[in-house]
Amino acid sequence: MKVLILFGSPSDKSVMHGAKKALDEFGVHNESYALSAHRLPELLEEVLTKKEEEGFEVIIAGAGLAAHLPGVVASKTVLPVIGVPLKGALEGLDALFSIVQMPKQVPVATVGIGNAYNAGMLAVQILAVKYPELKTALLNYRKNLKEQLSAEYAQEVIYE
Amino acid sequence: MKVLILFGSPSDKSVMHGAKKALDEFGVHNESYALSAHRLPELLEEVLTKKEEEGFEVIIAGAGLAAHLPGVVASKTVLPVIGVPLKGALEGLDALFSIVQMPKQVPVATVGIGNAYNAGMLAVQILAVKYPELKTALLNYRKNLKEQLSAEYAQEVIYE
Amino acid sequence: MKVLILFGSPSDKSVMHGAKKALDEFGVHNESYALSAHRLPELLEEVLTKKEEEGFEVIIAGAGLAAHLPGVVASKTVLPVIGVPLKGALEGLDALFSIVQMPKQVPVATVGIGNAYNAGMLAVQILAVKYPELKTALLNYRKNLKEQLSAEYAQEVIYE
Amino acid sequence: MKVLILFGSPSDKSVMHGAKKALDEFGVHNESYALSAHRLPELLEEVLTKKEEEGFEVIIAGAGLAAHLPGVVASKTVLPVIGVPLKGALEGLDALFSIVQMPKQVPVATVGIGNAYNAGMLAVQILAVKYPELKTALLNYRKNLKEQLSAEYAQEVIYE
Amino acid sequence: MKVLILFGSPSDKSVMHGAKKALDEFGVHNESYALSAHRLPELLEEVLTKKEEEGFEVIIAGAGLAAHLPGVVASKTVLPVIGVPLKGALEGLDALFSIVQMPKQVPVATVGIGNAYNAGMLAVQILAVKYPELKTALLNYRKNLKEQLSAEYAQEVIYE
Amino acid sequence: MKVLILFGSPSDKSVMHGAKKALDEFGVHNESYALSAHRLPELLEEVLTKKEEEGFEVIIAGAGLAAHLPGVVASKTVLPVIGVPLKGALEGLDALFSIVQMPKQVPVATVGIGNAYNAGMLAVQILAVKYPELKTALLNYRKNLKEQLSAEYAQEVIYE
Amino acid sequence: MKVLILFGSPSDKSVMHGAKKALDEFGVHNESYALSAHRLPELLEEVLTKKEEEGFEVIIAGAGLAAHLPGVVASKTVLPVIGVPLKGALEGLDALFSIVQMPKQVPVATVGIGNAYNAGMLAVQILAVKYPELKTALLNYRKNLKEQLSAEYAQEVIYE
Amino acid sequence: MKVLILFGSPSDKSVMHGAKKALDEFGVHNESYALSAHRLPELLEEVLTKKEEEGFEVIIAGAGLAAHLPGVVASKTVLPVIGVPLKGALEGLDALFSIVQMPKQVPVATVGIGNAYNAGMLAVQILAVKYPELKTALLNYRKNLKEQLSAEYAQEVIYE
Repeated sequence: MKVLILFGSPSDKSVMHGAKKALDEFGVHNESYALSAHRLPELLEEVLTKKEEEGFEVIIAGAGLAAHLPGVVASKTVLPVIGVPLKGALEGLDALFSIVQMPKQVPVATVGIGNAYNAGMLAVQILAVKYPELKTALLNYRKNLKEQLSAEYAQEVIYE
Repeated sequence: MKVLILFGSPSDKSVMHGAKKALDEFGVHNESYALSAHRLPELLEEVLTKKEEEGFEVIIAGAGLAAHLPGVVASKTVLPVIGVPLKGALEGLDALFSIVQMPKQVPVATVGIGNAYNAGMLAVQILAVKYPELKTALLNYRKNLKEQLSAEYAQEVIYE
Repeated sequence: MKVLILFGSPSDKSVMHGAKKALDEFGVHNESYALSAHRLPELLEEVLTKKEEEGFEVIIAGAGLAAHLPGVVASKTVLPVIGVPLKGALEGLDALFSIVQMPKQVPVATVGIGNAYNAGMLAVQILAVKYPELKTALLNYRKNLKEQLSAEYAQEVIYE
Repeated sequence: MKVLILFGSPSDKSVMHGAKKALDEFGVHNESYALSAHRLPELLEEVLTKKEEEGFEVIIAGAGLAAHLPGVVASKTVLPVIGVPLKGALEGLDALFSIVQMPKQVPVATVGIGNAYNAGMLAVQILAVKYPELKTALLNYRKNLKEQLSAEYAQEVIYE
Repeated sequence: MKVLILFGSPSDKSVMHGAKKALDEFGVHNESYALSAHRLPELLEEVLTKKEEEGFEVIIAGAGLAAHLPGVVASKTVLPVIGVPLKGALEGLDALFSIVQMPKQVPVATVGIGNAYNAGMLAVQILAVKYPELKTALLNYRKNLKEQLSAEYAQEVIYE
Repeated sequence: MKVLILFGSPSDKSVMHGAKKALDEFGVHNESYALSAHRLPELLEEVLTKKEEEGFEVIIAGAGLAAHLPGVVASKTVLPVIGVPLKGALEGLDALFSIVQMPKQVPVATVGIGNAYNAGMLAVQILAVKYPELKTALLNYRKNLKEQLSAEYAQEVIYE
Repeated sequence: MKVLILFGSPSDKSVMHGAKKALDEFGVHNESYALSAHRLPELLEEVLTKKEEEGFEVIIAGAGLAAHLPGVVASKTVLPVIGVPLKGALEGLDALFSIVQMPKQVPVATVGIGNAYNAGMLAVQILAVKYPELKTALLNYRKNLKEQLSAEYAQEVIYE
Repeated sequence: MKVLILFGSPSDKSVMHGAKKALDEFGVHNESYALSAHRLPELLEEVLTKKEEEGFEVIIAGAGLAAHLPGVVASKTVLPVIGVPLKGALEGLDALFSIVQMPKQVPVATVGIGNAYNAGMLAVQILAVKYPELKTALLNYRKNLKEQLSAEYAQEVIYE
C-alpha cells in the first residue's frame, strides 16, 4: 500500500501535508515530491516510472493556478490520480477548473480547493477496494469519528 | 468487478449513459438506478446496503443543481464515490461546487461537468488497482487509442 | 414557539450566533446544535425527530463549502428550513449554490451569505403567521427601528 | 390560507405558474399580480395593504435582472416573503444575488433560480406551522411521492 | 448646482466620502444622508421630495450587498441617479449586479465597485451639460491633471 | 438637445437601436455611428470633435468583449458618456467589467447588459437637468406609464 | 516564416481555421495538426521537434475544457506559444483560466475566447519583429483596414 | 533588443518589476514608464512613437480594473503587445477580461494575473525568434533551471 504525493512547488508543502496526515492515520506508506509538470517534465516522468515499478498504487497531485500537474500525471499513468486544486489566485477557481475539466479518457479524481486531507482519505478508500484491512480501518474510523463527535455534538451549544 | 451508477432523476439518464459506456468497454458489470438523495433517502440507503452486500466496489453518482446525491452517498459508505456534476443551471457550476467542495473526511472524487464517461473510466482505474487484468486492459486501451489517434492525427489537417 | 439552530461544525458557532440573537430579541426559545450532515447522519436524524416531538416549529441550518446540511434537514422534515450559506471558500459562493439550488419539492429558504441574523428574523416572521403576539412584536420592532434610525439618519452626514 | 404571488412583468407569468401549481395541489387559495417594484410602487403598496387586510399570510415574489421586487415587498410588510430569482441575464445570477443578499433585518426567503414550484412548496410549509391540516397534507404528499417514486425508481435503469 | 449623496448605512461613510471629495473640488454643493431603502422608505421618500424642491439636480447613491438603494431612488425621481456598488460580500459583485441590471425605463448610471470619486466626477460632468462654468472647470481639470501627471510620468521609472 | 450614439461594430446595430428608440420617444435628436475604438482611433476622435462642436451634449457608447469604446470616448471628452455592455462572450460579463471598472477621474455611466433603451432613457434624464421641457416630458412619461400599466396590472393574472 | 497550428481535437477545426485565415492573409506558411496533449504526448513531442527543425518559429495552440495543450507545448519549446481558449463548457472560462494562468517561467501568450483569428494576427506581429516585409505588410493592413472601414463607418447609421 | 514596459499608475511599479527582472536576466535593455491610457493619451502616443523610432521591438503593458492600457497600445502600434492583468478589484478578473477579450484584428498577448515575470519571459521568447543568441540563452536557462530544480526536487520532501 503505497501512495505518491506530488505538488508543483515546494511552497505547496504545508497545504499538501494534509494528504500525508490522512495516509499516516491509516498506516499507508507515502512519499512526497515537489515536481513541476512544466519545468521538470523528464524528472516527473522518471519519478512516475520508478515509483510505479516500486509498487505505488495511487497518486495524489496538488497544484495551483493553471494547475496542469494532475492532468499531466494522469496522461502518463493508468493509476488513479487524485487532484487537489490549490489557492494561488482567483480563490483557487482557476486550479479547480484546470484539474476537474479534463478531457474524455483522461480523468482526474478532483477533491475540494485546498482539501489535501480529503485527497489522502480518498486514496485510502481506493486502496480499501483491494485491501480488506483498510476497509475495516475505514469503517472503524467512521465509527470512532461518530462516537467521538456524537459525545461532543449531542450537547446543546452554549454561547457565552 | 461491479460498479453502481446512481443519478438523481430519470432525466439524467442520457448524460449518465456515458458512465455505463466506459464500464461496458472494459467489461465491468454495472447497474444504474435513478434515486433522489432527498426524495427517496430510505430507498437510497436500502439500495446502497444491498448493492454493497452484492459486492459492488465503486459508486458513480451524477446530479445537477444543489447536487447532494454524491455527497450523501459518500456519507453512507466507505466505498470510493465518483461524482458527476450535471448541467441544470448556471452552466453546471452549482453542481460542481456542491459535489467537489465536500467537507473534511467525506471526499467525493469529482470529474468534469457532464463528463460521465470519465467517471466510468476513473472507476475502471480504481478497480484496476485490485484487478491486474483491468490494468492490462487499461494499458491496451491507451495503446490502442494512441495508435488509432496517431494514424489519424499525424496527418496535417486540411481545411476545405 | 421554538426554533432549532443547527450548524455543520463547532467553528461556525460565532457566525451562527446571529440567528440566536434575533430570536432572543423576540423572546423565541431556541436551541443550537453542531451536527454535521455527513459525519453524524444518525444523530442528526435523532435530534430532528426528538426536537420535532418537543414542538420545534422552524429549523435554521448554517453550513459552508458543499453545505449539504440545510438540504439534508429539509429532506427529513416538512417544517420550514432556513439555510445560511457560510463563507468557507470561494467567498461563500459554493455554500450559496449548494443551499439555494435545491431540487423541486424540497425547498430551503435561503438567506444571505453569513447573514445568520436574517435567518433568525425570517424564523420570527414565519412564526408570526401563527402567533399574533409575534406579529405585533415585529410591527413594533419595525416601528422602533424606524424611529431610532430616523432620529439618527435624518441628520446630514458630516465628514470630519 | 391565502398566498399572494407577485412578479415584475407579465412575461414572467409562465415560469411563476409553478408557484400556483404547488399551492393548488395543497388547496391553498392564491392570487397572482404582475406588479413592477419600480414602475408601479404606489399600486404595489396598495395591493399589499389590501391583500394583507384580506388575510393573505405569505407572499411569493419573482423577479429577474436587478430583481428588487422581493426585497421591496419585504420592506413593506412583516409577512414572510419568498423570492424567486428569474433568468433574464447572466444565467439568473444577477437576480439571485439581488434577492438573497438582503441587508440585516429585512430577509427574503430565497429559492432556486426559476424554481417557482419550490416557492409554492415553501409557502405551504410555512402555512403548515399554523394549519395542522396542511402539515398532514405535506406528510401525505411526501409519503405518496416516495411510494410513487419508489415503485418507479427501485427498478434498474435500462438504457435502450 | 446641488448634488445629493445617499448611502444605505453609516458604515459606508468613509468610502462614499470620495464622492464628496470630487464634488468639493469643483465647488458643487453637496449633502450626504445615510438612508436605508428598506428600513426607512418613508424618510427616504421625504428627503428625496424635499431635496428635489430645494433644487438638487443629481443624486448619488451607494450601497452594498443586495444594494437596492440606487434603484429605489431611481424609481421615485426622474433626476439622474448615479449608483456606487460597495464591497460587502462577493468582492462587490452582488452590489454591482443589483445596481447595474435595472429594468427597462428605470436606469441607474453605475460606476465602478467602491469608486465613489468617479460618481462625484460623473455628477459634475452631468451638471456641466447645463452649467458652462463647470464645463470650463472640467476642461481645466483635465488639462491640469495632464500637465501634472505628464511632468511626473514622462520620466522613466527607476526601480530601486 | 442632441445625443451621439456610437458602437464598435455594425453588428451591434440592432441591439443599440434601443437607445435611439428611447431618444426618439422624447424627441431628442440623435445620430448613430459604428466606430471601433481600436481600429479607427483617428476617425473616432474626428467625429467626437465635430459632433461636440455641433452641440451634441451626451454620448452613448455600446461595445462587447473587451469593450474599450466607452472608456476611450470618456478619455477624449468631458461630456457625460453612457456605456452599454453588449453580449459577445461570457454572457456579457467581460463587457460589463471593461466598461464599469474605469479608473479614477474617467467615469463611464454604465447601464445593464444589452439594455440600450435604458442608455437612451438615462441620456434624456441627464438632458432634463438642463431642459425643463424634457423634465416635464419625463414626468408625463412616468405618469402615463403608471396609468397604462396600472390598468393592465391591477387585474389578477389568470393562467390559462 | 512558418507557424504551427495545433489543437486538441479534430472538432476544434472550424474555430481554429481563423488562425490559418489570418496567416494566409499575410502569406505566412502554416500547418495544422490535431494533437491531444494528454492522449498523444509522444506524437506531440515528435511533431514539435520535427517542426522546430523544419524552421517553424511560432506555435498556436487551441484547446477547450482543462485546455492543457498550450501549456504543455510551452513546456517543451522556447518558441513563443500562443494559446486560444475554446468554448467547451462554462462559456470557455475553464479553458481561459487553464491557459492564461501558467506558472512563472513558462508563459503562454493568451488571446480571447474562440478568437483564433487574433492568434494568427499575433503570430504575424511576432514574426514581423524579425521580418521587415511582414512589418510593412502589417502597416499596410492597418492602413487599408482603416480606409475601408472609414469609408463605410463615417456614414451615419440609418436604422430601417 | 529593447523592450518597453508600461503601466497605468505608479502604484503598479512593484508588481511590474517582475517584467524588468526577467528581461534583465537575459540582458535585454528595457525602460519603464507609468502612463495612463485615459489620462495621458497624447503623452502615451508620443512615448510610443519615440520608443518605436529608438528601436524598441516588444511592448509590455500592465493595468488593473478596466485595464484598457494594453489594448489602447495595441491599437497604436503593430509591435507585439504583452498584457499583464493586475489585481485592483474582483481578484483581477476585470483586468483579465478587459485585456484578453480584445476584438478581431487587435490582439494582446495576455499572461496570468499579476504575472509580470512571465510577460518579461514571453518578450524574451518573442525576441529570440529574431536573435539567435537569445534563443541559446533561453535554452541554457531552461537547462540550468532544470538542473537546479532537479537537484533540489528529486529529493523526497520531508515534513518536519
